[in-house]
Amino acid sequence: MRNLRIDGERLWASLMDLARIGATPKGCKFDGAFGVMAALEVVRTLNDLGWETAAPIEIVAWTNEEGSRFSPAMVGSGVFAGVFDLAYGLGRPDNTSGVTLGAEFERIGFAGPEPVGGRAVAAYFEAHIEQGPILEAAGKPIGVVTGAQGQRWYEVTVTGQEAHAGPTPMPRRRDALVGASRMIEAVNRIGHAHAPNACATVGFVQVSPNSRNSIPGRVFFTVEFRHPEDAVLTEMDRALRQACAEIAAAIGLEVEVSEFWYFPPTPFDPDLVAAVRDAAEAQGYPHQDIISGAGHDAVYMARVAPTAMIFVPCVGGISHNEIEDAKPEDLTAGCNVLLNAVLDLGSACRRP
Amino acid sequence: MRNLRIDGERLWASLMDLARIGATPKGCKFDGAFGVMAALEVVRTLNDLGWETAAPIEIVAWTNEEGSRFSPAMVGSGVFAGVFDLAYGLGRPDNTSGVTLGAEFERIGFAGPEPVGGRAVAAYFEAHIEQGPILEAAGKPIGVVTGAQGQRWYEVTVTGQEAHAGPTPMPRRRDALVGASRMIEAVNRIGHAHAPNACATVGFVQVSPNSRNSIPGRVFFTVEFRHPEDAVLTEMDRALRQACAEIAAAIGLEVEVSEFWYFPPTPFDPDLVAAVRDAAEAQGYPHQDIISGAGHDAVYMARVAPTAMIFVPCVGGISHNEIEDAKPEDLTAGCNVLLNAVLDLGSACRRP
Repeated sequence: MRNLRIDGERLWASLMDLARIGATPKGCKFDGAFGVMAALEVVRTLNDLGWETAAPIEIVAWTNEEGSRFSPAMVGSGVFAGVFDLAYGLGRPDNTSGVTLGAEFERIGFAGPEPVGGRAVAAYFEAHIEQGPILEAAGKPIGVVTGAQGQRWYEVTVTGQEAHAGPTPMPRRRDALVGASRMIEAVNRIGHAHAPNACATVGFVQVSPNSRNSIPGRVFFTVEFRHPEDAVLTEMDRALRQACAEIAAAIGLEVEVSEFWYFPPTPFDPDLVAAVRDAAEAQGYPHQDIISGAGHDAVYMARVAPTAMIFVPCVGGISHNEIEDAKPEDLTAGCNVLLNAVLDLGSACRRP
Repeated sequence: MRNLRIDGERLWASLMDLARIGATPKGCKFDGAFGVMAALEVVRTLNDLGWETAAPIEIVAWTNEEGSRFSPAMVGSGVFAGVFDLAYGLGRPDNTSGVTLGAEFERIGFAGPEPVGGRAVAAYFEAHIEQGPILEAAGKPIGVVTGAQGQRWYEVTVTGQEAHAGPTPMPRRRDALVGASRMIEAVNRIGHAHAPNACATVGFVQVSPNSRNSIPGRVFFTVEFRHPEDAVLTEMDRALRQACAEIAAAIGLEVEVSEFWYFPPTPFDPDLVAAVRDAAEAQGYPHQDIISGAGHDAVYMARVAPTAMIFVPCVGGISHNEIEDAKPEDLTAGCNVLLNAVLDLGSACRRP
């Protein structure tokens, strides 16, 4: 372990310079950007110190990680890793105008001649803000990410009988929203029942007719479950279906629970994870193992290359939000761990 | 009691003719239209039979009862009864274009020279479909409406912390939707606790940011309570505020419960109610007393004149919906009761 140090001020300045490009009131400065700027800082540091690695280091800025403009998310790493084929990726339409990702690459000059993927990658590291509250609460600047949670995503439709809210007595109602509310509470209970690693969320709700004085006849909502173990996800799936069926039957509703996305749990490479842990230890940073709850390009890369991630805390555990923030010293710590983990893996490094 | 009979086939034909004007896939054929066509049929019958009443009979087609295009609802009867002043009524803007009700009256030639209201009304009767399931379930063609429920309408805003659904552990969440779901269940419980006359409904829900993989940071929803007794409405109000406060405190949410509309319970005139009941009895129609849960022009008219209503069943208790339906024989029964109750009140009627 060589225990080199990056230049934290240069890293911070790069992030702030980058944040000025395309800034909006909700411009998030760190989600994604930190990983790319940290990789750049690693290479700059190696150049400054005159180090050369046995294997070449590539810095990747994956296209369309968020999927905000072109669905689905992580389409760049997905194509690289063979999850999607290239034509599918290039053909993704803009969510509003319909112009394709491939056409936009041509227009802005990003459509290069290199083939996507297909070459050997010895190791893939990704540094990222945690986007959750665990490291901040624990007071630790480094999260050693041991893998990514599996995910099961559902769409639930509850159907009752729309009616006028005034003249319809309570016992005669088949109120889809009362049913949906009990199901949302059940989703929450299923999440808590599998603490500490389970997440269970209803994020989207659509009520019909959504009128102040109508008993809702139909409610559509989404459910997502996350857990690092497939067996637990299976049990959560069973509990969801049972709860929805029982709640619907009690009020005379119909319910349809449809799973539309499954993402298997992804353990990261033990050697790379150990390299991250060792680097944090050697640099004297408090650290803890952590499971990634969010999707990352690293999760696709883990299908084709040994992979690990480094998390740093974000303020209040908040991301995807205008108040997303991170401390410079934590970003420096994460970048130092990235540098030394990379050097550890490329153990044939030499000082020319 | 003279026990005259209207022409049920003519009444039905009038309703079907009217329904063809401005028909849409959600054209309701009976809500409102039945009352006007029934009044017309009463006058046609009196003319056919050569009867004349001591007091003149006016047929009213109230403007803008639904409030679909110009808010608020019942603005015509409200101006007549002095609930709103005339300038307010004429100044109501179209919900989308902003053109006023008064300007539209001028354009279509409905702006007449008569003053609105201000003259004595000895009795006001209104026939209406029930818009609820009670009469159909009881197998009775006539509801003797003894009064209208009081209403309290609320807006509730629940604020938690928006966060990424993946990396935020269950115990650290302040999920506004979980809180709102428990409050919606509490509203339902409060309604059932005051059966059989209470109604408690959440009809409108708005979740923010309403994204599949975000923990909702804010939920806005409406509550409406209805009951014929003010003391019960006061108790329901107390229970709502207590439940919302307790649920919010348990999850660390903020909640704001704001009442924005109060409509006092309106008992109808005992003499007119008795005239309706007597007419149903004399005609041999099964009947029962019933409280109106919906708002009606009659509720405003009750402020300035002795008032009563006659309900007839609607199929499945459904209204405000494309499948609204009513049976011709029930409409005939309601119109016969209206005819004879009107004649009973105008007791100085004579055959010329």
